[in-house]
Amino acid sequence: MSFSKRIPIFLLRLLALAATISATLIMVTSRDSAQVFNVKFEAKYTNSPTFTYFVLMNAIASGYTLILLFFPTKCSFGHLILIFDLIVALLLDSSISACIAIGQVGKKGNSHAGWLPICGQVPRFCDHVTGAIIAGFVAALVYFLILVYSLHNLINLFSLKN
Amino acid sequence: MSFSKRIPIFLLRLLALAATISATLIMVTSRDSAQVFNVKFEAKYTNSPTFTYFVLMNAIASGYTLILLFFPTKCSFGHLILIFDLIVALLLDSSISACIAIGQVGKKGNSHAGWLPICGQVPRFCDHVTGAIIAGFVAALVYFLILVYSLHNLINLFSLKN
Repeated sequence: MSFSKRIPIFLLRLLALAATISATLIMVTSRDSAQVFNVKFEAKYTNSPTFTYFVLMNAIASGYTLILLFFPTKCSFGHLILIFDLIVALLLDSSISACIAIGQVGKKGNSHAGWLPICGQVPRFCDHVTGAIIAGFVAALVYFLILVYSLHNLINLFSLKN
Repeated sequence: MSFSKRIPIFLLRLLALAATISATLIMVTSRDSAQVFNVKFEAKYTNSPTFTYFVLMNAIASGYTLILLFFPTKCSFGHLILIFDLIVALLLDSSISACIAIGQVGKKGNSHAGWLPICGQVPRFCDHVTGAIIAGFVAALVYFLILVYSLHNLINLFSLKN
Protein backbone atom coordinates (compact mmCIF):
# COMPACT_ATOMS: atom_id res chain seq x y z
CA MET A 1 0.00 0.00 0.00
CA SER A 2 1.41 3.42 -0.89
CA PHE A 3 2.42 5.91 1.79
CA SER A 4 -0.39 8.38 0.93
CA LYS A 5 -2.95 5.58 1.38
CA ARG A 6 -1.49 4.65 4.75
CA ILE A 7 -2.04 8.13 6.25
CA PRO A 8 -5.89 7.91 6.46
CA ILE A 9 -5.57 4.42 8.00
CA PHE A 10 -3.05 5.77 10.53
CA LEU A 11 -5.37 8.66 11.45
CA LEU A 12 -8.39 6.35 11.72
CA ARG A 13 -6.43 3.99 13.99
CA LEU A 14 -5.38 6.96 16.15
CA LEU A 15 -9.06 7.91 16.48
CA ALA A 16 -10.00 4.28 17.25
CA LEU A 17 -7.29 4.18 19.93
CA ALA A 18 -8.62 7.36 21.56
CA ALA A 19 -12.19 6.02 21.43
CA THR A 20 -11.42 2.55 22.84
CA ILE A 21 -9.23 3.95 25.63
CA SER A 22 -11.94 6.51 26.49
CA ALA A 23 -14.64 3.82 26.46
CA THR A 24 -12.58 1.59 28.78
CA LEU A 25 -11.73 4.41 31.22
CA ILE A 26 -15.24 5.91 31.31
CA MET A 27 -16.74 2.47 32.03
CA VAL A 28 -14.12 1.54 34.65
CA THR A 29 -14.63 4.82 36.53
CA SER A 30 -18.44 4.55 36.52
CA ARG A 31 -19.48 4.35 40.15
CA ASP A 32 -22.40 5.69 42.14
CA SER A 33 -24.22 4.72 45.31
CA ALA A 34 -27.72 5.19 46.65
CA GLN A 35 -29.63 4.48 49.85
CA VAL A 36 -32.76 2.47 49.08
CA PHE A 37 -34.93 1.38 52.09
CA ASN A 38 -31.94 1.81 54.43
CA VAL A 39 -29.88 -0.52 52.29
CA LYS A 40 -26.82 1.03 50.70
CA PHE A 41 -26.68 0.13 47.06
CA GLU A 42 -23.50 0.63 45.10
CA ALA A 43 -23.42 0.60 41.32
CA LYS A 44 -20.18 -0.23 39.55
CA TYR A 45 -19.33 -1.84 36.24
CA THR A 46 -18.28 -5.20 37.78
CA ASN A 47 -21.89 -5.67 38.96
CA SER A 48 -22.82 -6.73 35.44
CA PRO A 49 -21.01 -9.35 33.33
CA THR A 50 -22.05 -7.32 30.26
CA PHE A 51 -20.19 -4.20 31.43
CA THR A 52 -17.16 -6.33 32.36
CA TYR A 53 -17.25 -7.82 28.85
CA PHE A 54 -17.41 -4.28 27.41
CA VAL A 55 -14.30 -3.21 29.36
CA LEU A 56 -12.43 -6.36 28.30
CA MET A 57 -13.27 -5.99 24.59
CA ASN A 58 -12.37 -2.29 24.52
CA ALA A 59 -9.10 -3.00 26.34
CA ILE A 60 -8.26 -5.74 23.80
CA ALA A 61 -9.12 -3.36 20.92
CA SER A 62 -6.94 -0.60 22.48
CA GLY A 63 -4.00 -2.98 22.79
CA TYR A 64 -4.42 -4.27 19.24
CA THR A 65 -4.69 -0.73 17.81
CA LEU A 66 -1.67 0.44 19.82
CA ILE A 67 0.47 -2.43 18.49
CA LEU A 68 -0.55 -1.72 14.89
CA LEU A 69 0.08 2.02 15.30
CA PHE A 70 3.53 1.87 16.79
CA PHE A 71 5.02 -1.40 15.63
CA PRO A 72 3.67 -1.58 12.08
CA THR A 73 6.74 -3.07 10.46
CA LYS A 74 7.42 -5.81 13.01
CA CYS A 75 3.81 -6.93 13.12
CA SER A 76 2.95 -6.79 9.48
CA PHE A 77 0.86 -9.82 8.59
CA GLY A 78 -0.03 -8.43 5.16
CA HIS A 79 -3.62 -9.00 4.17
CA LEU A 80 -4.35 -11.05 7.28
CA ILE A 81 -4.67 -7.66 9.06
CA LEU A 82 -8.05 -7.40 7.33
CA ILE A 83 -9.29 -10.48 9.19
CA PHE A 84 -7.95 -9.18 12.52
CA ASP A 85 -9.62 -5.81 11.86
CA LEU A 86 -12.85 -7.63 11.04
CA ILE A 87 -12.68 -9.61 14.30
CA VAL A 88 -12.01 -6.42 16.32
CA ALA A 89 -14.94 -4.66 14.59
CA LEU A 90 -17.22 -7.62 15.44
CA LEU A 91 -16.06 -7.69 19.08
CA LEU A 92 -16.59 -3.92 19.53
CA ASP A 93 -20.01 -4.17 17.82
CA SER A 94 -20.95 -7.06 20.10
CA SER A 95 -19.86 -5.23 23.28
CA ILE A 96 -21.79 -2.02 22.57
CA SER A 97 -24.93 -3.93 21.52
CA ALA A 98 -24.91 -5.92 24.76
CA CYS A 99 -24.38 -2.72 26.80
CA ILE A 100 -27.18 -0.89 25.01
CA ALA A 101 -29.55 -3.80 25.77
CA ILE A 102 -28.67 -3.76 29.49
CA GLY A 103 -28.56 0.07 29.61
CA GLN A 104 -32.06 0.21 28.15
CA VAL A 105 -33.36 -2.02 30.97
CA GLY A 106 -31.46 0.15 33.49
CA LYS A 107 -33.10 3.27 32.10
CA LYS A 108 -36.63 2.10 31.32
CA GLY A 109 -36.86 -1.16 33.26
CA ASN A 110 -39.01 -4.01 31.98
CA SER A 111 -42.47 -4.12 33.54
CA HIS A 112 -43.22 -7.57 32.05
CA ALA A 113 -40.23 -9.14 33.80
CA GLY A 114 -40.65 -7.01 36.93
CA TRP A 115 -37.26 -5.35 36.46
CA LEU A 116 -37.33 -1.79 37.80
CA PRO A 117 -35.25 1.00 36.24
CA ILE A 118 -32.23 1.94 38.35
CA CYS A 119 -31.02 5.13 36.65
CA GLY A 120 -33.21 7.28 38.91
CA GLN A 121 -31.23 6.01 41.94
CA VAL A 122 -27.74 6.05 40.42
CA PRO A 123 -27.79 8.79 37.75
CA ARG A 124 -24.01 9.34 37.77
CA PHE A 125 -23.44 5.64 37.05
CA CYS A 126 -25.91 5.73 34.16
CA ASP A 127 -24.33 8.88 32.70
CA HIS A 128 -20.93 7.18 32.72
CA VAL A 129 -22.31 4.05 31.06
CA THR A 130 -23.99 6.22 28.38
CA GLY A 131 -20.66 8.00 27.77
CA ALA A 132 -18.81 4.70 27.52
CA ILE A 133 -21.37 3.37 25.02
CA ILE A 134 -20.99 6.52 22.86
CA ALA A 135 -17.16 6.19 22.88
CA GLY A 136 -17.50 2.46 22.09
CA PHE A 137 -19.87 3.27 19.23
CA VAL A 138 -17.35 5.74 17.77
CA ALA A 139 -14.65 3.02 18.01
CA ALA A 140 -16.85 0.45 16.23
CA LEU A 141 -17.75 2.97 13.52
CA VAL A 142 -14.07 3.86 12.99
CA TYR A 143 -13.20 0.16 12.65
CA PHE A 144 -15.97 -0.19 10.06
CA LEU A 145 -14.43 2.73 8.12
CA ILE A 146 -10.94 1.19 8.42
CA LEU A 147 -12.31 -2.03 6.93
CA VAL A 148 -14.13 -0.29 4.07
CA TYR A 149 -11.14 1.96 3.27
CA SER A 150 -8.64 -0.94 3.36
CA LEU A 151 -10.90 -3.05 1.15
CA HIS A 152 -11.37 -0.21 -1.29
CA ASN A 153 -7.58 0.20 -1.54
CA LEU A 154 -7.10 -3.48 -2.30
CA ILE A 155 -10.03 -4.02 -4.64
CA ASN A 156 -12.08 -1.30 -6.27
CA LEU A 157 -15.43 -1.64 -4.47
CA PHE A 158 -17.27 0.17 -7.22
CA SER A 159 -16.10 -2.18 -9.95
CA LEU A 160 -19.00 -4.28 -11.26
CA LYS A 161 -16.86 -7.32 -11.94
CA ASN A 162 -17.91 -10.31 -9.85
CA MET B 1 -15.34 -15.30 -9.69
CA SER B 2 -15.16 -18.79 -11.21
CA PHE B 3 -18.08 -21.22 -10.95
CA SER B 4 -16.21 -23.63 -8.63
CA LYS B 5 -15.52 -20.77 -6.22
CA ARG B 6 -19.17 -19.74 -6.25
CA ILE B 7 -20.41 -23.14 -5.01
CA PRO B 8 -19.05 -22.83 -1.42
CA ILE B 9 -20.52 -19.29 -1.20
CA PHE B 10 -23.87 -20.61 -2.46
CA LEU B 11 -23.85 -23.43 0.13
CA LEU B 12 -22.83 -21.05 2.93
CA ARG B 13 -25.64 -18.65 1.97
CA LEU B 14 -28.09 -21.56 1.96
CA LEU B 15 -26.96 -22.43 5.50
CA ALA B 16 -27.21 -18.76 6.55
CA LEU B 17 -30.75 -18.61 5.14
CA ALA B 18 -31.78 -21.72 7.12
CA ALA B 19 -30.20 -20.31 10.29
CA THR B 20 -31.72 -16.80 10.04
CA ILE B 21 -35.19 -18.16 9.19
CA SER B 22 -34.93 -20.63 12.11
CA ALA B 23 -33.78 -17.87 14.48
CA THR B 24 -36.67 -15.62 13.44
CA LEU B 25 -39.30 -18.36 13.72
CA ILE B 26 -38.02 -19.78 17.04
CA MET B 27 -38.00 -16.28 18.59
CA VAL B 28 -41.44 -15.32 17.20
CA THR B 29 -43.01 -18.53 18.54
CA SER B 30 -41.47 -18.16 22.01
CA ARG B 31 -44.35 -17.83 24.43
CA ASP B 32 -45.03 -19.03 27.95
CA SER B 33 -47.17 -17.91 30.85
CA ALA B 34 -47.02 -18.25 34.60
CA GLN B 35 -49.16 -17.40 37.61
CA VAL B 36 -47.16 -15.34 40.12
CA PHE B 37 -49.02 -14.12 43.26
CA ASN B 38 -52.38 -14.53 41.46
CA VAL B 39 -51.16 -12.29 38.65
CA LYS B 40 -50.99 -13.96 35.26
CA PHE B 41 -47.68 -13.19 33.64
CA GLU B 42 -47.19 -13.84 29.95
CA ALA B 43 -43.76 -13.93 28.37
CA LYS B 44 -43.43 -13.24 24.67
CA TYR B 45 -40.73 -11.77 22.48
CA THR B 46 -42.47 -8.39 22.05
CA ASN B 47 -42.07 -7.79 25.80
CA SER B 48 -38.47 -6.84 25.20
CA PRO B 49 -37.20 -4.33 22.61
CA THR B 50 -34.02 -6.45 22.41
CA PHE B 51 -35.91 -9.56 21.28
CA THR B 52 -37.95 -7.48 18.80
CA TYR B 53 -34.65 -6.10 17.41
CA PHE B 54 -33.35 -9.69 17.12
CA VAL B 55 -36.40 -10.75 15.08
CA LEU B 56 -36.12 -7.68 12.84
CA MET B 57 -32.40 -8.16 12.15
CA ASN B 58 -32.76 -11.88 11.43
CA ALA B 59 -35.74 -11.20 9.13
CA ILE B 60 -33.69 -8.57 7.24
CA ALA B 61 -30.75 -11.01 6.96
CA SER B 62 -33.12 -13.76 5.69
CA GLY B 63 -34.54 -11.43 3.04
CA TYR B 64 -31.07 -10.26 1.95
CA THR B 65 -29.74 -13.85 1.75
CA LEU B 66 -32.83 -15.00 -0.18
CA ILE B 67 -32.40 -12.23 -2.75
CA LEU B 68 -28.70 -13.04 -3.25
CA LEU B 69 -29.42 -16.77 -3.54
CA PHE B 70 -32.17 -16.64 -6.11
CA PHE B 71 -31.63 -13.43 -8.05
CA PRO B 72 -27.83 -13.36 -8.23
CA THR B 73 -27.54 -12.02 -11.77
CA LYS B 74 -30.08 -9.22 -11.48
CA CYS B 75 -28.70 -7.97 -8.18
CA SER B 76 -25.01 -8.21 -8.84
CA PHE B 77 -23.31 -5.18 -7.33
CA GLY B 78 -19.84 -6.64 -7.85
CA HIS B 79 -17.48 -6.06 -4.97
CA LEU B 80 -20.01 -3.89 -3.11
CA ILE B 81 -21.58 -7.21 -2.03
CA LEU B 82 -18.64 -7.47 0.40
CA ILE B 83 -19.79 -4.29 2.18
CA PHE B 84 -23.41 -5.51 2.32
CA ASP B 85 -22.20 -8.86 3.69
CA LEU B 86 -20.12 -7.00 6.27
CA ILE B 87 -23.13 -4.92 7.36
CA VAL B 88 -25.32 -8.05 7.66
CA ALA B 89 -22.59 -9.80 9.70
CA LEU B 90 -22.39 -6.77 12.04
CA LEU B 91 -26.19 -6.60 12.42
CA LEU B 92 -26.46 -10.33 13.22
CA ASP B 93 -23.53 -10.06 15.65
CA SER B 94 -25.17 -7.08 17.34
CA SER B 95 -28.56 -8.81 17.67
CA ILE B 96 -27.21 -12.00 19.27
CA SER B 97 -24.95 -10.06 21.65
CA ALA B 98 -27.88 -7.95 22.87
CA CYS B 99 -30.02 -11.10 23.30
CA ILE B 100 -27.31 -12.93 25.22
CA ALA B 101 -26.99 -9.94 27.59
CA ILE B 102 -30.75 -9.88 28.30
CA GLY B 103 -30.98 -13.69 28.37
CA GLN B 104 -28.23 -13.80 30.98
CA VAL B 105 -30.27 -11.45 33.23
CA GLY B 106 -33.37 -13.57 32.58
CA LYS B 107 -31.52 -16.71 33.62
CA LYS B 108 -29.36 -15.48 36.51
CA GLY B 109 -30.98 -12.14 37.39
CA ASN B 110 -28.87 -9.30 38.74
CA SER B 111 -28.91 -9.05 42.53
CA HIS B 112 -27.15 -5.64 42.50
CA ALA B 113 -29.92 -4.09 40.40
CA GLY B 114 -32.67 -6.10 42.11
CA TRP B 115 -33.64 -7.85 38.88
CA LEU B 116 -34.91 -11.35 39.61
CA PRO B 117 -34.38 -14.24 37.17
CA ILE B 118 -37.55 -15.16 35.28
CA CYS B 119 -36.54 -18.44 33.61
CA GLY B 120 -37.79 -20.48 36.58
CA GLN B 121 -41.32 -19.14 35.95
CA VAL B 122 -41.34 -19.31 32.16
CA PRO B 123 -38.94 -22.14 31.21
CA ARG B 124 -40.48 -22.78 27.79
CA PHE B 125 -39.97 -19.12 26.84
CA CYS B 126 -36.33 -19.25 27.94
CA ASP B 127 -35.69 -22.49 26.02
CA HIS B 128 -37.04 -20.87 22.85
CA VAL B 129 -34.90 -17.77 23.35
CA THR B 130 -31.82 -19.99 23.89
CA GLY B 131 -32.64 -21.88 20.67
CA ALA B 132 -33.09 -18.63 18.75
CA ILE B 133 -29.74 -17.32 20.05
CA ILE B 134 -27.98 -20.54 18.95
CA ALA B 135 -29.53 -20.31 15.45
CA GLY B 136 -28.59 -16.60 15.29
CA PHE B 137 -25.05 -17.45 16.35
CA VAL B 138 -24.77 -20.02 13.54
CA ALA B 139 -26.01 -17.37 11.07
CA ALA B 140 -23.44 -14.81 12.29
CA LEU B 141 -20.66 -17.40 12.12
CA VAL B 142 -21.66 -18.40 8.57
CA TYR B 143 -21.62 -14.73 7.49
CA PHE B 144 -18.14 -14.39 8.99
CA LEU B 145 -17.04 -17.42 6.91
CA ILE B 146 -18.68 -15.96 3.77
CA LEU B 147 -16.68 -12.75 4.30
CA VAL B 148 -13.37 -14.55 4.90
CA TYR B 149 -13.91 -16.88 1.92
CA SER B 150 -14.93 -14.03 -0.43
CA LEU B 151 -11.94 -11.94 0.69
CA HIS B 152 -9.59 -14.86 0.22
CA ASN B 153 -10.88 -15.36 -3.33
CA LEU B 154 -10.29 -11.71 -4.21
CA ILE B 155 -6.97 -11.19 -2.46
CA ASN B 156 -4.73 -13.91 -1.14
CA LEU B 157 -5.03 -13.46 2.63
CA PHE B 158 -1.80 -15.32 3.27
CA SER B 159 0.29 -13.08 1.04
CA LEU B 160 2.68 -10.97 3.11
CA LYS B 161 2.50 -7.97 0.77
CA ASN B 162 1.08 -4.91 2.47
